Amino acid sequence: MPLKDQVTVAVDANGADLGPAEVLAGAGDAVAASHGALRVLFFADTTGLTAPDGVTLVHAPVSIAKAAEPAAAARSTPDASVVQAAKAVADGRADALVSGGSTGAALAASLFAIKRARGIHRPALAMTIPIPAHPFLLLDVGANVAVRPEHLVQFAHMGAAYSEVALGIEKPRVALLSNGTEATKGTEDVQAAHAALAGVPGFIGSVEGFAVGTGKADVIVTDGFTGNVMLKTMEGVSSALLGAVRTAALSSVRAKAGGLLLKPALRGLRDEVEPSEHGGAVLLGLRKVGVVPHGSFGARGFQRAIEVAAKTVRADVVGRTYTRLEAAGALRERPSVASAPAPMVSDR
Amino acid sequence: MPLKDQVTVAVDANGADLGPAEVLAGAGDAVAASHGALRVLFFADTTGLTAPDGVTLVHAPVSIAKAAEPAAAARSTPDASVVQAAKAVADGRADALVSGGSTGAALAASLFAIKRARGIHRPALAMTIPIPAHPFLLLDVGANVAVRPEHLVQFAHMGAAYSEVALGIEKPRVALLSNGTEATKGTEDVQAAHAALAGVPGFIGSVEGFAVGTGKADVIVTDGFTGNVMLKTMEGVSSALLGAVRTAALSSVRAKAGGLLLKPALRGLRDEVEPSEHGGAVLLGLRKVGVVPHGSFGARGFQRAIEVAAKTVRADVVGRTYTRLEAAGALRERPSVASAPAPMVSDR
Repeated sequence: MPLKDQVTVAVDANGADLGPAEVLAGAGDAVAASHGALRVLFFADTTGLTAPDGVTLVHAPVSIAKAAEPAAAARSTPDASVVQAAKAVADGRADALVSGGSTGAALAASLFAIKRARGIHRPALAMTIPIPAHPFLLLDVGANVAVRPEHLVQFAHMGAAYSEVALGIEKPRVALLSNGTEATKGTEDVQAAHAALAGVPGFIGSVEGFAVGTGKADVIVTDGFTGNVMLKTMEGVSSALLGAVRTAALSSVRAKAGGLLLKPALRGLRDEVEPSEHGGAVLLGLRKVGVVPHGSFGARGFQRAIEVAAKTVRADVVGRTYTRLEAAGALRERPSVASAPAPMVSDR
Repeated sequence: MPLKDQVTVAVDANGADLGPAEVLAGAGDAVAASHGALRVLFFADTTGLTAPDGVTLVHAPVSIAKAAEPAAAARSTPDASVVQAAKAVADGRADALVSGGSTGAALAASLFAIKRARGIHRPALAMTIPIPAHPFLLLDVGANVAVRPEHLVQFAHMGAAYSEVALGIEKPRVALLSNGTEATKGTEDVQAAHAALAGVPGFIGSVEGFAVGTGKADVIVTDGFTGNVMLKTMEGVSSALLGAVRTAALSSVRAKAGGLLLKPALRGLRDEVEPSEHGGAVLLGLRKVGVVPHGSFGARGFQRAIEVAAKTVRADVVGRTYTRLEAAGALRERPSVASAPAPMVSDR
């Protein structure tokens, strides 16, 4: 796919904790920083909002961000902001999706409107883990609670293609998450995945939870249940430990003085572990990329989400993934339509 | 079971990183601190060692701590120190096991010699997670990579009984690890386990990885694959973050001064997250308890492991577990021998 001169990102702003105005500020900042290379189609309750240059407002007050059953809600609520935004991407009015609502709703709307990319078994939710000095991409963090080995192989390719673009890593080292580094460790499915992953360029074998923060792997693949537990455990531990350091630094006059002196040095660390800089979770394996910033993100987080989404379009993450899968013979076979493959939306 | 006046712990010291002499020092300290209430049977290469009061040395130079296939090694190596120590427990010469070798070898030798407790499907490996202010017990952390819902129910009872004793919690709150708090989240097995756990006293529902450090649950149950990933992820994140704080505190003269002033306050935190204070991983579901200190532990860690093992004997963790399982109707049924149940070793 030739690089596009101008990229349009469809943004669903309903559901963001700080409200659509905050998301709109982020959208405006992203457009301004792009010097004309980026436009935003903005879906939300736009009452009282004024569009900055390069942003088109679409009044879409219906939200399914809190729907208990996102898949059913996405199908039955065509006017929901996230469904409208996903449709804009599917129709070609936009090139990528950013949704400030729930991950479940974004995934459901994307599967429904944007659809899986050609040859993909299952989309996956990937997250760049902002561990100091050694960020890495973890997937699946929740799109599929149970997966087969061939899904993990595809996740490896999807994650590698994305990390080339988002983390700027030339030859990503890909690892399988397990309870030991040996090929014989893990459940039967994990062992089968280890064997199947042998053909993936950059596969370095299995890693344990210890690998976090060591820089051993750039991409770690696992099922969406384990990945979700791992992701949230990292957040839990991180918040408990940094909270304990903060408490210790307030425990005495001496400690307070120490904390003040240390503050500038710790600021760099704080910035490094700030998840919003990576834009949020990423839906991979669709015909276009979707980014799901955390609902708590402010303008800066949404700006980054939009920029990351635009980057995946410019660097053609979807096409790179297809090329990798094709070269590895890891595409999902669809015998009935093999002779006339459906056009990829990204070729349109 | 009546409280025992004197408890004997069988200690396998082969495989400990710092060698048998370091383990022996820990054993001596545990015995001395007990004022006669504790004895140790010490299995290792005892060349050059002198037994402190209350410790009996058994020269057992053969080690299977590094065996690639622990189960086969435990069966085929009767003179291995861990097998001899486990046999001493099975024979009644000792009341609990502590092994400084590999977890796999300790589990294999225990299953082989000590055997599962009556009515237990599967033993589990439990670990007290030393998160600041809110330690909790996590199981299974690696004994069973795949489990059925009824196993998780038993883990809940085993973990609750142990945490009553080891963490001194009167009515432990037990949670199921999942990728969401709703009963409908997780794999099919996790959902089935959620339903089956409803009858467990203290069951508070499902928790996510976020629960770490919040004090929400005293016991978290999961399969041994997810638990192992979670445990090692916590160690990885913890070490990466504390390492980054340390690096920041050395990054400038100002930061160094701050670090020095903060040091005393952070020392308390460091002690709180020190895993050796909890003695190590614990094998639950056997006729006697086994404690597996980390191979890197020094004398203090082994002392604590021996003390924790003795505590489980005095407070009858095995009997408490049986009582809980029986009251909940959660014992494994063995139709063929139901009329003549095998005597529990602890009744001997």
